[in-house]
Amino acid sequence: MNTVDAAASARKAARIMAGLSSEDKNKALAKIAELMLSQTDEITKANAEDLKRSQNEALAAPLLKRLKFDHTKLAESAEGLRSLIGLDDPSGRTLLVNELDDGLELYRVSCPIGVIGVIFESRPDALVQIAGLCLKSGNALLLKGGSEARATNRILTDLIIKAGQEAGLPDGWIYLLETRADVQEMLKLDQFVDLIIPRGSNEFVRYIMDNSRIPVLGHADGVCHMFIDSTADPQMAVKLTVDSKTQYTAVCNAMETLLVHSDHAQKLLPELAQALMEAGVDMYGCDRVSALLGCPEVENWHTEYLDLKISIKLVDSLEDAIDHINTNGSGHTEAIVTSDKDKAAKFMLLVDAGNVFWNCSTRFSDGFRYGFGAEVGVSTSKLHARGPVGLDGLMTYKYKLLGHGQTVGEYADGTRRFSHRKLDRSCPL
Amino acid sequence: MNTVDAAASARKAARIMAGLSSEDKNKALAKIAELMLSQTDEITKANAEDLKRSQNEALAAPLLKRLKFDHTKLAESAEGLRSLIGLDDPSGRTLLVNELDDGLELYRVSCPIGVIGVIFESRPDALVQIAGLCLKSGNALLLKGGSEARATNRILTDLIIKAGQEAGLPDGWIYLLETRADVQEMLKLDQFVDLIIPRGSNEFVRYIMDNSRIPVLGHADGVCHMFIDSTADPQMAVKLTVDSKTQYTAVCNAMETLLVHSDHAQKLLPELAQALMEAGVDMYGCDRVSALLGCPEVENWHTEYLDLKISIKLVDSLEDAIDHINTNGSGHTEAIVTSDKDKAAKFMLLVDAGNVFWNCSTRFSDGFRYGFGAEVGVSTSKLHARGPVGLDGLMTYKYKLLGHGQTVGEYADGTRRFSHRKLDRSCPL
Repeated sequence: MNTVDAAASARKAARIMAGLSSEDKNKALAKIAELMLSQTDEITKANAEDLKRSQNEALAAPLLKRLKFDHTKLAESAEGLRSLIGLDDPSGRTLLVNELDDGLELYRVSCPIGVIGVIFESRPDALVQIAGLCLKSGNALLLKGGSEARATNRILTDLIIKAGQEAGLPDGWIYLLETRADVQEMLKLDQFVDLIIPRGSNEFVRYIMDNSRIPVLGHADGVCHMFIDSTADPQMAVKLTVDSKTQYTAVCNAMETLLVHSDHAQKLLPELAQALMEAGVDMYGCDRVSALLGCPEVENWHTEYLDLKISIKLVDSLEDAIDHINTNGSGHTEAIVTSDKDKAAKFMLLVDAGNVFWNCSTRFSDGFRYGFGAEVGVSTSKLHARGPVGLDGLMTYKYKLLGHGQTVGEYADGTRRFSHRKLDRSCPL
Repeated sequence: MNTVDAAASARKAARIMAGLSSEDKNKALAKIAELMLSQTDEITKANAEDLKRSQNEALAAPLLKRLKFDHTKLAESAEGLRSLIGLDDPSGRTLLVNELDDGLELYRVSCPIGVIGVIFESRPDALVQIAGLCLKSGNALLLKGGSEARATNRILTDLIIKAGQEAGLPDGWIYLLETRADVQEMLKLDQFVDLIIPRGSNEFVRYIMDNSRIPVLGHADGVCHMFIDSTADPQMAVKLTVDSKTQYTAVCNAMETLLVHSDHAQKLLPELAQALMEAGVDMYGCDRVSALLGCPEVENWHTEYLDLKISIKLVDSLEDAIDHINTNGSGHTEAIVTSDKDKAAKFMLLVDAGNVFWNCSTRFSDGFRYGFGAEVGVSTSKLHARGPVGLDGLMTYKYKLLGHGQTVGEYADGTRRFSHRKLDRSCPL
């Protein structure tokens, strides 16, 4: 099948998916998990093929690790699908009710978006997770995984299709794109595809945005800050700085710039530097920090190191810290360490970011840690969904208006008047 | 000031606007209304200038009517601002709470989007309404109105700026673009502008989408349907058909295509045709309808007449009606007339549109009628906001995480475990 036909089929399937009951969707999730576990050998064999080819092509070790889909990861993936079964159905929820008049009731009700296109990295477990989220939310799915994982992705998709058929899902609800040309084609199909979710580098997300009319849910870079206020508890400041910077450096919610109140220049700053040095972090500073610590100066305050490197700046006030962040940050995750509740409140109100934290590590901004179950990605856009995006981000809503023959003419000529009363009930249909 | 500087100022102002209290914003709304009423003469004089110039340029009568901003419209606009004061502040609302662990609490809190760019038609009352909505929601605003209204728009903007200064709003929170070149410039400024709302024709909205990286909230065409089911009450069917088609033909929520169950071919169809004919509507039909009524055949089922014209089709089932709508509709407003609740439920579940109606006129899909107060526009996109968009559509959210020094390391190594409990409380800061 070519991409256009696949997208057209997905559109048709999406309209059926929107009408599935929670039981139908949960039955299919269970069936996929069951088939995965019963085909462990075939799946790990396909994965071994991917691993061998990629080793021959000298794929870097961390990428090989992500590509690996062994018994443990397979069991975790199946468990992840089963945990989705326990979640409430995100579809069909009444979000707002207005009585417009006696016997004329308006309901805002959640429903799936339709057809989602996801382009993801070379982790086969991501395929299972994304398919599970789309199924639970009632969306159809076009998928493109990393080409390193092609054999694993193919066997997993075939299995998901088979499980879906057995569980009564419509044909074409999931389709695996195989080439970059397929992705190019998909980006043009705004009549069939409602949302693109690209997972990958900043440049990659930007490229997708620039080459499609379809709305894109993705994230730009993560230039995350931590501000150590004058009233910060010193021990907490050290602990949170080290965790935010070093707990895992290669991710977007790792801290890149440390802002320290100038009251701390003589005592806490050297302690922070000592702790960072012991953790193997290379430091770069503003002119004052550079002079105090003897480290090189920062060249660009909008730098995402994704490495054991950090920018450090002394600031003279909360306001200066907020200004620096709003000027140089990327709207991802920004933290303040302070004992002053009012300062925390001001910081969290005025910093323009998807995630604003008080006295905890920047590394918490993640769908799993937030308790959203799985996540489809992190959004640094402000529209539709912001921050870690779980099932919610795959939903839209429709307005259902239930009447008894009312015409607008009656209200226009004054025969009838709107009541506009808030009601507290769920949509009866 | 040029557009780039204005947009940069708006970005700065937006960060201050986000921190304003409800009282600050309401005070400014009251001040604008007060100044408008005290400068009635100056405003109507500027409007007379616009009207005279536009008459000389032979502007069409309906457009002249929209351009007119007399004492009545001015008083209505001031009243509209005052009604915004009475609405709840859409900012700072707690939308979701998760306890991640003891003393580690996550809140999703609503906040303004930032800088909104609005391009609107030649109604000066739209300027007042949009400015009021942006102020109430805490957003900064770049505005471009129709050039016919330039003198009225200028005096209104100057007055709003003056009132804002007196009420303590930040400089630069609102700025009037004067030329099309300014708009072109704004479309490039994705570093300063968060959302573009173009009000106007389908082609215009499409042009904006194709020429900007900035997200666009707008609407495509409104090819709205009404399906008369086999169990429809005949009298209601006639009444709703006539209202949906003729109550106001030039708008996107007017019905364009009537689908009639084939059970009604002999009796109700001729009655519907009679009523439409009496209302001055030209009919076009499918082959069967054309033969029965002796009217011309429809050439294209995706036609938005915006006029006293209608397409009529006989369909043999509810499923055929849903299929026809999902294939030919524009996702705007789709209605069913039926006495069968199950059929209504199925129609509303499976029709993919922002507004799905049972036994009432398509003309109800409108922000005022929905009880949202003012509306910034109607969205036929499925992302962010769908259907008539009120204050809600100008909001985003941020996640606030309140901790006591927690690191991710503690959870990664198993020292601590997430509780992930839903809580029912508002964010304390």
